[in-house]
Amino acid sequence: MINITLPDGSVRSYNNDVTPYNVAKDISEGFARNVISAKFNDTIVEITTPLSEDGNLVLYTWRDDEGKKAFWHSSAHILAQALEELYPRVKLWVGPAIENGFYYDVDLGNDTISEKDFSTIEAKMLEIARGKHDFKMRSVSKSEALSFYKGKNEYKVELIENLEDGTISFCDHSTFTDLCRGGHVPNTGIVKAIKILSVAGAYYKGDENEKQLTRVYGISFPKQKELTEYLHLLEEAKKRDHRKLGKELELFTFSQKVGQGLPLWLPKGAALRERLENFLKAAQKKAGYEMVVTPHIGNKDLYVTSGHFAKYGEDSFQPINTPAEGEEFLLKPMNCPHHCEIYNSRPFSYKELPIRYAEFGTVYRYEQSGELHGLTRVRGFTQDDAHIFCTPDQLDAEFKEVIDLVLYVFGSLGFENFTAQVSLRDPENPDKYIGSDENWDKAEKAILNAAKDKGLNYVVETGEAAFYGPKLDFMVKDALGRKWQLGTIQVDYNLPERFDLTYKGSDNELHRPVMIHRAPFGSMERFVAILLEHTGGNFPLWLMPEQAIILSVSEKYEKYAQKVLNLLENDEIRALADNRNETVGKKIRGAEMNKYPYMIIVGEQEEMNGTITVRQHGGEDLGTISVEDFVKIVKEKVSNSLKTFK
Amino acid sequence: MINITLPDGSVRSYNNDVTPYNVAKDISEGFARNVISAKFNDTIVEITTPLSEDGNLVLYTWRDDEGKKAFWHSSAHILAQALEELYPRVKLWVGPAIENGFYYDVDLGNDTISEKDFSTIEAKMLEIARGKHDFKMRSVSKSEALSFYKGKNEYKVELIENLEDGTISFCDHSTFTDLCRGGHVPNTGIVKAIKILSVAGAYYKGDENEKQLTRVYGISFPKQKELTEYLHLLEEAKKRDHRKLGKELELFTFSQKVGQGLPLWLPKGAALRERLENFLKAAQKKAGYEMVVTPHIGNKDLYVTSGHFAKYGEDSFQPINTPAEGEEFLLKPMNCPHHCEIYNSRPFSYKELPIRYAEFGTVYRYEQSGELHGLTRVRGFTQDDAHIFCTPDQLDAEFKEVIDLVLYVFGSLGFENFTAQVSLRDPENPDKYIGSDENWDKAEKAILNAAKDKGLNYVVETGEAAFYGPKLDFMVKDALGRKWQLGTIQVDYNLPERFDLTYKGSDNELHRPVMIHRAPFGSMERFVAILLEHTGGNFPLWLMPEQAIILSVSEKYEKYAQKVLNLLENDEIRALADNRNETVGKKIRGAEMNKYPYMIIVGEQEEMNGTITVRQHGGEDLGTISVEDFVKIVKEKVSNSLKTFK
Repeated sequence: MINITLPDGSVRSYNNDVTPYNVAKDISEGFARNVISAKFNDTIVEITTPLSEDGNLVLYTWRDDEGKKAFWHSSAHILAQALEELYPRVKLWVGPAIENGFYYDVDLGNDTISEKDFSTIEAKMLEIARGKHDFKMRSVSKSEALSFYKGKNEYKVELIENLEDGTISFCDHSTFTDLCRGGHVPNTGIVKAIKILSVAGAYYKGDENEKQLTRVYGISFPKQKELTEYLHLLEEAKKRDHRKLGKELELFTFSQKVGQGLPLWLPKGAALRERLENFLKAAQKKAGYEMVVTPHIGNKDLYVTSGHFAKYGEDSFQPINTPAEGEEFLLKPMNCPHHCEIYNSRPFSYKELPIRYAEFGTVYRYEQSGELHGLTRVRGFTQDDAHIFCTPDQLDAEFKEVIDLVLYVFGSLGFENFTAQVSLRDPENPDKYIGSDENWDKAEKAILNAAKDKGLNYVVETGEAAFYGPKLDFMVKDALGRKWQLGTIQVDYNLPERFDLTYKGSDNELHRPVMIHRAPFGSMERFVAILLEHTGGNFPLWLMPEQAIILSVSEKYEKYAQKVLNLLENDEIRALADNRNETVGKKIRGAEMNKYPYMIIVGEQEEMNGTITVRQHGGEDLGTISVEDFVKIVKEKVSNSLKTFK
Repeated sequence: MINITLPDGSVRSYNNDVTPYNVAKDISEGFARNVISAKFNDTIVEITTPLSEDGNLVLYTWRDDEGKKAFWHSSAHILAQALEELYPRVKLWVGPAIENGFYYDVDLGNDTISEKDFSTIEAKMLEIARGKHDFKMRSVSKSEALSFYKGKNEYKVELIENLEDGTISFCDHSTFTDLCRGGHVPNTGIVKAIKILSVAGAYYKGDENEKQLTRVYGISFPKQKELTEYLHLLEEAKKRDHRKLGKELELFTFSQKVGQGLPLWLPKGAALRERLENFLKAAQKKAGYEMVVTPHIGNKDLYVTSGHFAKYGEDSFQPINTPAEGEEFLLKPMNCPHHCEIYNSRPFSYKELPIRYAEFGTVYRYEQSGELHGLTRVRGFTQDDAHIFCTPDQLDAEFKEVIDLVLYVFGSLGFENFTAQVSLRDPENPDKYIGSDENWDKAEKAILNAAKDKGLNYVVETGEAAFYGPKLDFMVKDALGRKWQLGTIQVDYNLPERFDLTYKGSDNELHRPVMIHRAPFGSMERFVAILLEHTGGNFPLWLMPEQAIILSVSEKYEKYAQKVLNLLENDEIRALADNRNETVGKKIRGAEMNKYPYMIIVGEQEEMNGTITVRQHGGEDLGTISVEDFVKIVKEKVSNSLKTFK
């Protein structure tokens, strides 16, 4: 008899050789039908694997990440079989599950695969899947394994040569066998919908000196409907790619001469960014922050003091030498050392704390060119940075205040769906951390309290704190359900030590303040990118580059269009006029494509009556109204979505 | 008979040997009494020098810069004589006139001079001056000159050894003789008021490997009243030193760790700067500028293209290397190359021009540490930069628009007194310049027309244009009458060539746009420094960090003070409350010192009646009024001084 403990803590006793599937069936027949993968004593097993000792069992369905992983890993086997059948000379290397789907790296010999072959591969895979072949794991000796591949597949041979005898297993299904560590769905029949997504080159062992193999990407689902939805999402994501939208909406550009990863903000993008900054500035002012301005370089000493030079110096932009006097400067990779020096420029009393220095500070961090991606991975970016210097006793209240600010920012920008992660120290490794136990306790309690108090949906990760303090990170889900890391709040005991920051306490002694680093947006570049992908360019009205476009019915009404434009501009509504010699229908279609929230049509009737005819983006008709009424509608809509902070 | 031509073009005929003084007397006896120096055929002469050929004569009085130079040069002789009489072992080196006064570098042997000796030196100098000794020039041979100093003064000997025989002259007055090229007032009696200002060390020949001499600084005037005024001005300038005020008003600071010449803007300074920026942004928006944002570094290629690397590379901050990929970046020394790349990011039609890109762009330029001075000479500064890309035909109108903007900026900030300099090309050296003759003609005419049209008080300097185009620079005089170089407007034909900028003309062909660089403030750092020295910290009301301070009569009225503060803040009046346990008298004195424009006193009467008692900086009493009335007064005063642009 063995005892199997389930995640809810319940223990069930079975005869030796019970399988995870048996346990699932014991729980419920319906549940068992959905179970596709399992973990026993922290090792992934098949649901048909006999269990022969006491242990903890977790059962996974498609809804779990581990379930998806088994599903896609199994699908990779099916892909491999299909490729072997379609391309007899194919040699397989490896084929893992990835975040969305799976791939297999293969040597096609003289064959090639292109998009026109995808449907053939999909059909072959579906044919195999429908056979409902069981995935069956078996242990093999190293010599057996080698002899299976020798002379046929040098890639697998090299893989096996690096494995230890006794740890090697094969997986069979249908007529196909693969070297494999396990973690499959029970049989191929569960895979109902398959899509080959793309092919790409991939170097053997990831080494550019080795042979280039072909990587075939695919994705699969238990239901056709899920595949359809996924492909739709993919289409949507492509349309919302911020690099594409950034170009279409004329927000930013890059120049090879200026340098890779260094965005140039075009007028509309710079104005958008300024609106975001002004929005946060107004909230920060209410929350008691003070703006400071610091240079974009600092003497090397500054970063030696902060510890950044020792830690990141080699991988960063290299020091800037001076033509005389032998000084060395560094591009600033963060604003905190500068803010510490501002704090240090005069003495503070406990009565003056907290001090909150905010800066839209542009920082520079070296990234390899291959890592760069639009505005999300750049070499220069502007943090909506601030540093709070407070007493340990103020930490609790300050942390809550910062959470309020972050939630206000997310709310105002339409991110309704977010989660938080609290990262605490590893209690087993107290030596990894700087700062007293007492202060850590205080800080961790402050964060946990604040997260609970503010009703955050959060997870706690023990051991994930930075060495200098615990932190709270926010993840948002965008309109397509994709997760993005955004704002962060971090407690820091390290820099106050390194910069010898002090305040005079009520006891007239000098004490160390605690620092909080925080950035609700994260960076202006990354935030604008995410906002673009979230909204597809349909920003909240208060943020739109142009809130309305005036479409004159014909050139005769250009003057009236200009008059309306002036009226709107006087009321600080951002608008432009389209007086091209085109039909209104064509102008409306163009305006829809360019995402103008309001289209204002002016023709003979409108000019005569001093009115405008208004149509909303997406088609809704607001009828013929006065300019004043239109201004009211816009102002009301803006003030509804953009509450002031507190 | 010789013919003497005067600056007004009139010609007078004299016998040979007429002196400038004779000519002056001929013009008027009164004028002649004031003439102290002269220039004949572009050479400075004594007014007693006999003129023996035809030529142009200019006569100078104390009011002319050349007159002052002669006055102070002569005073240096008097100083030298005084030092020889007071310190018999003294050895003279050189003693020129400078911008304000004169100095003499001397070797004092074992003697020293300190502040307590100044009055003795002044008394001795005045004694010599009162003797009304004539300054008399005489030519000497090199051997005569050498034998005069040999064995007594090795410094003069070395000077003489480097001179050519036949060009050497001595000047005698009283019992004193000095090696001298000339340019004196007629006699010592004109010098009526003398002040020794300071002593400093100065290396012989300016070489730090040579002996250190003593430099004695002094200034002198024709009237005691003028000296008194000058010393008062000096006191005022000291009080207005922007480095002192910047510290007192908590506007900015420096940190050795961050680096010399890299200002850190404290909260009040950053807010002041932001107000200035917003003020200019609002005007620029009306003038059709669009803001852009560009990085603070650029690939070396960018500056190779612009030509800056070849021209300034060696003397600048050195290139930034990357840890991989071998790229080289440079801190940007100016924003124009980045703006050119933005212009180049899409094609333009002539219908879209002018394009005006504005950016508060922070740039970095290396300066030797000895050159750094507060905010006026720094290594990193933010230009209120903009670049206008227009057709040659638009240059005229654009130039005028920019002048309007500059004048608006100066007017809003209380600089009433300014002059302009138009710098044109040297017609004798057409090869020095880039761009066609036709375009230069157009640009120079545009600038001259604009300057005339706008009623500027300007001078034209031929040959002072940059190689890439003509320019217009503005100088302002501050409250103490000191001149500062501020805004600049420059035409540029060079960068459009180098960056291959084009627009499609009405002829459907590609044409080169013209660029205008312009910065009304110059830089935020320099402008704030000058504004501080101009206003002594009493900024225009709209710019003041705090517009009012609330002084509670005692702690009992702290709550009412807070209520008043909230009311003011709701109306966006910047204020703070002083609720310290101090007398109102003391609080008022403190507030006066800190330059708060309005002091609001609240006590029992005020709380009871819901009023406030208001006193203006400088003492004027506004009586007891309601908060609403006070808000009205402040708003009106602000809108009177801060007109909107156009």
